[in-house]
Amino acid sequence: MNPLPVPPYDGRHLLADLHGCSGLDDTDLIEQMLRDAAQAAGATLLDIRLHRFGPGQGVTGVALLAESHISIHSWPEHGYAALDIFMCGRSHDLEAALGVVAQALAPESVVRRMVERGYGACATAQTAPIGIA
Amino acid sequence: MNPLPVPPYDGRHLLADLHGCSGLDDTDLIEQMLRDAAQAAGATLLDIRLHRFGPGQGVTGVALLAESHISIHSWPEHGYAALDIFMCGRSHDLEAALGVVAQALAPESVVRRMVERGYGACATAQTAPIGIA
Repeated sequence: MNPLPVPPYDGRHLLADLHGCSGLDDTDLIEQMLRDAAQAAGATLLDIRLHRFGPGQGVTGVALLAESHISIHSWPEHGYAALDIFMCGRSHDLEAALGVVAQALAPESVVRRMVERGYGACATAQTAPIGIA
Repeated sequence: MNPLPVPPYDGRHLLADLHGCSGLDDTDLIEQMLRDAAQAAGATLLDIRLHRFGPGQGVTGVALLAESHISIHSWPEHGYAALDIFMCGRSHDLEAALGVVAQALAPESVVRRMVERGYGACATAQTAPIGIA
């Protein structure tokens, strides 16, 4: 049975709020984590940008992908990070990317939401929390 | 009456799917649009990165902000763009940023979702479509 045709801009956007993390002020760790997450997803890294707000303070990082992006914003003083993994197409493994991030930052809990993007997104949106691990 | 205290990593993430757009292969227009959107929101631009996939093809752009980020991924062949505007705190105007983008790209329709991020996000998430304009 052939799969249904998928529009080329059919995408998934995984939003994850990570609580009780470590390593959130470590720019080198976060940069390597973004690289590893992109690779784990099977995505193509185009560029990576990081900004550290100061010693002991948060890091903002974005990996630009051929498939869209992975971004993270961290608040080490609260052990909190906001992650989003956005990839067009259906052939990439967003969960594997999240797994890399979870291994790097060791969160105590993760609240995940999967948002359908692109054509037909209005009808098929899954925007409720899909898991707390 | 004093407002309730707001955690410093309390944020809003506006996801917008824009259909029927023009200008989606115009890197200069998209870069200026991201700069103007950040300014309209009252945000502080840290860095901006754009990638063009080729003549007539899509553009990926990310504005790194002190307050988080604005990103756009465009598919000019479908008149479609995926935009997200993510800002921590409550003092910035995400709708003004979206207005700048809508003015630049002239979409025929916009599907918007507002996602609450950060502490308490699980309980207060508003992830249903909030408007089609």
